[in-house]
Amino acid sequence: MRAVQYRTIGGEPEVVEIPTPEPAPGQVRLRVTAAGLCHSDSFIMGLPAEQYVYGLPLTLGHEGAGVVDALGDGVTGVAVGDSVVVYGPWGCGLCHACARGAENYCPHAAGLGIAPPGLGAPGALAEYMIVDDVRHLVPLGDLDPVASVSLTDAGLTPYHAIVSSLGALTAGSTAVVIGAGGLGHVAIQILRAITGATVVALDISDEKLELASQVGAHHVLRSDPSAVEAIRSLTGGVGAEAVFDIVGAPPTLELARQVVAVNGVVQIVGIGGGVLPTGFFSTPFGASVRAPYWGTRTELMEVLDLARSGAIHVEVERYTLDETPAAYRRLHDGTVRGRAVIVPGA
Amino acid sequence: MRAVQYRTIGGEPEVVEIPTPEPAPGQVRLRVTAAGLCHSDSFIMGLPAEQYVYGLPLTLGHEGAGVVDALGDGVTGVAVGDSVVVYGPWGCGLCHACARGAENYCPHAAGLGIAPPGLGAPGALAEYMIVDDVRHLVPLGDLDPVASVSLTDAGLTPYHAIVSSLGALTAGSTAVVIGAGGLGHVAIQILRAITGATVVALDISDEKLELASQVGAHHVLRSDPSAVEAIRSLTGGVGAEAVFDIVGAPPTLELARQVVAVNGVVQIVGIGGGVLPTGFFSTPFGASVRAPYWGTRTELMEVLDLARSGAIHVEVERYTLDETPAAYRRLHDGTVRGRAVIVPGA
Amino acid sequence: MRAVQYRTIGGEPEVVEIPTPEPAPGQVRLRVTAAGLCHSDSFIMGLPAEQYVYGLPLTLGHEGAGVVDALGDGVTGVAVGDSVVVYGPWGCGLCHACARGAENYCPHAAGLGIAPPGLGAPGALAEYMIVDDVRHLVPLGDLDPVASVSLTDAGLTPYHAIVSSLGALTAGSTAVVIGAGGLGHVAIQILRAITGATVVALDISDEKLELASQVGAHHVLRSDPSAVEAIRSLTGGVGAEAVFDIVGAPPTLELARQVVAVNGVVQIVGIGGGVLPTGFFSTPFGASVRAPYWGTRTELMEVLDLARSGAIHVEVERYTLDETPAAYRRLHDGTVRGRAVIVPGA
Amino acid sequence: MRAVQYRTIGGEPEVVEIPTPEPAPGQVRLRVTAAGLCHSDSFIMGLPAEQYVYGLPLTLGHEGAGVVDALGDGVTGVAVGDSVVVYGPWGCGLCHACARGAENYCPHAAGLGIAPPGLGAPGALAEYMIVDDVRHLVPLGDLDPVASVSLTDAGLTPYHAIVSSLGALTAGSTAVVIGAGGLGHVAIQILRAITGATVVALDISDEKLELASQVGAHHVLRSDPSAVEAIRSLTGGVGAEAVFDIVGAPPTLELARQVVAVNGVVQIVGIGGGVLPTGFFSTPFGASVRAPYWGTRTELMEVLDLARSGAIHVEVERYTLDETPAAYRRLHDGTVRGRAVIVPGA
Repeated sequence: MRAVQYRTIGGEPEVVEIPTPEPAPGQVRLRVTAAGLCHSDSFIMGLPAEQYVYGLPLTLGHEGAGVVDALGDGVTGVAVGDSVVVYGPWGCGLCHACARGAENYCPHAAGLGIAPPGLGAPGALAEYMIVDDVRHLVPLGDLDPVASVSLTDAGLTPYHAIVSSLGALTAGSTAVVIGAGGLGHVAIQILRAITGATVVALDISDEKLELASQVGAHHVLRSDPSAVEAIRSLTGGVGAEAVFDIVGAPPTLELARQVVAVNGVVQIVGIGGGVLPTGFFSTPFGASVRAPYWGTRTELMEVLDLARSGAIHVEVERYTLDETPAAYRRLHDGTVRGRAVIVPGA
Repeated sequence: MRAVQYRTIGGEPEVVEIPTPEPAPGQVRLRVTAAGLCHSDSFIMGLPAEQYVYGLPLTLGHEGAGVVDALGDGVTGVAVGDSVVVYGPWGCGLCHACARGAENYCPHAAGLGIAPPGLGAPGALAEYMIVDDVRHLVPLGDLDPVASVSLTDAGLTPYHAIVSSLGALTAGSTAVVIGAGGLGHVAIQILRAITGATVVALDISDEKLELASQVGAHHVLRSDPSAVEAIRSLTGGVGAEAVFDIVGAPPTLELARQVVAVNGVVQIVGIGGGVLPTGFFSTPFGASVRAPYWGTRTELMEVLDLARSGAIHVEVERYTLDETPAAYRRLHDGTVRGRAVIVPGA
Repeated sequence: MRAVQYRTIGGEPEVVEIPTPEPAPGQVRLRVTAAGLCHSDSFIMGLPAEQYVYGLPLTLGHEGAGVVDALGDGVTGVAVGDSVVVYGPWGCGLCHACARGAENYCPHAAGLGIAPPGLGAPGALAEYMIVDDVRHLVPLGDLDPVASVSLTDAGLTPYHAIVSSLGALTAGSTAVVIGAGGLGHVAIQILRAITGATVVALDISDEKLELASQVGAHHVLRSDPSAVEAIRSLTGGVGAEAVFDIVGAPPTLELARQVVAVNGVVQIVGIGGGVLPTGFFSTPFGASVRAPYWGTRTELMEVLDLARSGAIHVEVERYTLDETPAAYRRLHDGTVRGRAVIVPGA
Repeated sequence: MRAVQYRTIGGEPEVVEIPTPEPAPGQVRLRVTAAGLCHSDSFIMGLPAEQYVYGLPLTLGHEGAGVVDALGDGVTGVAVGDSVVVYGPWGCGLCHACARGAENYCPHAAGLGIAPPGLGAPGALAEYMIVDDVRHLVPLGDLDPVASVSLTDAGLTPYHAIVSSLGALTAGSTAVVIGAGGLGHVAIQILRAITGATVVALDISDEKLELASQVGAHHVLRSDPSAVEAIRSLTGGVGAEAVFDIVGAPPTLELARQVVAVNGVVQIVGIGGGVLPTGFFSTPFGASVRAPYWGTRTELMEVLDLARSGAIHVEVERYTLDETPAAYRRLHDGTVRGRAVIVPGA
């Protein structure tokens, strides 16, 4: 089958021919219907050899949708032909965190050699992929795989960050979203769908600010130091009860630090290289700072429910498997509107 | 192998010889090391034919511990020889509730023909038992199976009821436990271990009130109408923020209704045949009433953690498999101190 | 000044002339700008003498808005001329519940002779009213008093019931609202504004079902036994995670019992005379039942925030003080669209 | 009356004679029965002039207990002769945060010139003190003022940090307390009283580690880099679900960073000059970092409830008003066991 692999440190992703995998007992093989590209793919392909821990060659793609194609022995609960998406942050399945579906916080996965597809295990940028356990599949039903595949990360990751912040997001609160791209434009919709917060979106691109408005942001602001005063003014001096920094670079984190309210929360969602100094001499009293990771199994189901009800959708640009390297370049250049999705069968 | 079965409506449980089961792909066979008896076994054996839905013959025992004896194809995560307990409220594993480990609230289990061991599926009162999926096993480690097996229900059920009530159980609150038997004496210990509440235990038996004191109740009272005034007095007229009715009979529920505080919670844990009329013309403003069922996977792990740290333990009486019918009679007569546990290998 | 009083058991409310009150130290006098009528006024005026505990004569009106008119000694934090609404469920201010703003659950108020305005203390159906403490005032700012006054009860009461149920109202859940009148049509809007739940509204009046659709219900159904099957079907057999019974009569509570999901919640908001038998032999596993009362101080502020952002509004019919008795009759007949509001200065 | 004041930047606190204050309308005068000394007093007395914002002269003491001595006009709810403690983090009383009793997070206090007693307003290190509103008093009942006064900060501050972390402190979790002095030895007791967590205490002083063991720590460790490995080992490699850094200096925060678990929480309680870099490239996935401030009104009541039930107590050293400067020196030298308390009447 054809697949997109990262094969040498510092190299470009390549379209290659590799053997079609067979499902072992307990596993499921999918015929991939859609796979999303993510900034974090670029991030890991930019790592020097001594920091790169994902194995080579690596079949990329941690956002995957497919049709169940073959079942290993002992698999029940799905049938060949079912349309599904893949829950990506695979854990051990047996610890406290996994037992409540928070496999994204499994403390044992790395030690057991368990890695998400596309981030260690073979990913979704291929004609077929193996999913290790039926619990990592969520039925799509009538949802379109291409429109929905990015909900597994670009939807789930902000959803988890937002749900983790619900205590701060009471009616009348203010939520700031820094970065209105692939994850950010979904974050805005989720905030509108499940909270009564006023949503303020920040970006450096006029196009993305326009997208932010279209998907429901109450206010849009240029992401620069002037935003601090604007947000203070919008909130009567109080600041934002929750800040979702989808960029995570030093200047955006500094902005987050300056606009978060007393007892508010900063969720660092983007891996833009920054850290936020936290404590009495930096952040407001009671403000918590955290870098969440992906989301739980139940949260993924809830994200799909929101899509099913029409409350959220992902803007996508569609590419063939052969166009993947070019699509990664567009992503890197910041010119993708929403999310780039590969359709292997196209 | 030998097993204890309920074979005819209205009959006594019988010790019988049946074939030793083989694990199918995905399943695990345990050599049973301990199995607990429960009032709910007596409850279902008392049902008339038209209400009995558990199948015949039924191998009893929904509290089970064992040593992993054989693995079906595709099973990973446990090894032959591991000492484990069984998480009993099996669900579909794939729905919203199951994905967060709350298989006890799976809305699909019954429709899919999935039932707990001992309550539909073959149970733990046998030399060997089959567990349908490795996720339903929790490692015991060094914990003694006989002392620990009842944590899977007599521990987990009150633990879930208590954890569901934590919002009401702030420091300085009062918790009332009605019934200090198998579940009640564990409920008292859990309340002491994980909350700052004052614990008031009620029972009609002096022996059980003495047990209640020994395991940590701050106050013990006879379970009769005089308790209402006593609890009002202990709480400065406010009432109890949480009431755990381990009996669930009409008089105990009436007592619960009269002692629960405004905005408090009543958890009906016992299946004693009663219902509690709830609403403005019966219960205090804001008081919630609920009949919880068993507990979640993570909660079972936490219960074992509490046992491991020494914070809770179950009083047990130990019997052989052959003595099971006699032990059920003692349980029915209310003469068991704590919990009756069968040791098949003894 | 003129005021509307309930003066004799079984009588009609009357417009009377009484002395204008003076604020004692710590108190605030308002010139009333708007006062809402409520079904619960009719309820208490229908009580027989032996159950009536609100004093006679009683100046009615527990939904009040006004302009600060005079300050007692020692009052700070508001100024003459401020436009405010009154937080109604007055408590002692000093106990655990009051300290967190849940004066609606103060266990000491009744014993201390503290009662809400219009339900013991002189109410808002008058040209002037006394508020006992500045903490019971919330600034309206630019909000219109007539359009906003009912947020203090018809908004706050469902808001509190909904916020108390947020754990069940995850994205993808289903909320059922029984009764789309004064409180119900606001409940629907609040659910849409602060949750991702699908909202199903039930009523027996076609006009109210139309109002329900206009204010955002996803589905509307006639409130009769056929609704049970319809809701089961809409939810894939699971039932509704939360049911808000704004009627609270025996048939609506029976409906609530039949449609609530496993581990769901029933909030009995209406005082329609019913109680719901709760327990293993009546309600689903884990389903909680509760009759909440009004709401907290912070919740009232949040309700006003929602109105300010345009997320919710109350449909009102406007009357003069002299028209109050006639307006109560329309309310009793069920012909008011939304809420009836008296404007004393009109 | 006599009072202890900080009068010149860089000076020592001095015992001086000042006029006895009179209560204005709404205010309460206490005859002080006990006042606690705190590291934060030393901290502010060490600030350079350009950072010092508390006014001069400043009557010190933000932990205060007293007997109600005189009431301003309009005060109800307390009576002359009542024994009370003072809730210190005074807010505006009218905003969202204050309405739920979280005056410690009032965003308006500073702008309105409202400051806690001893940190702007005249404090408790005097024979008499003024409390601005009856809501800032909590009845002591039979509790001893000298033994209890430090619960208002040394109890409330860790209590708030712990209650804010309850989601992480499930049964079986591990809590690390860094620093077993005035606040730390109370934190240990609170953790034991209201959670099922295993408590690990760290300090650099053998005496304080011994105190930690006496008050209930399961494990004690020297606070140095070797503790990281020891905690990893105690937790099966997982780390601590919650870390309370009562020191807050750069080395202790580094330790916190290294021992906190995935999805855990670090509460920076001490103002030891450090900040903790938070984000993907520093802290574990999902771990939140926060510097909480003091606590809420209801939390103070709960802390007193815990003391009343015997679950917690503060180790105190008792001094006269004249000995205050010497006591501050002992505090600075780290030689106080528990908390230093001044008894003005002694």
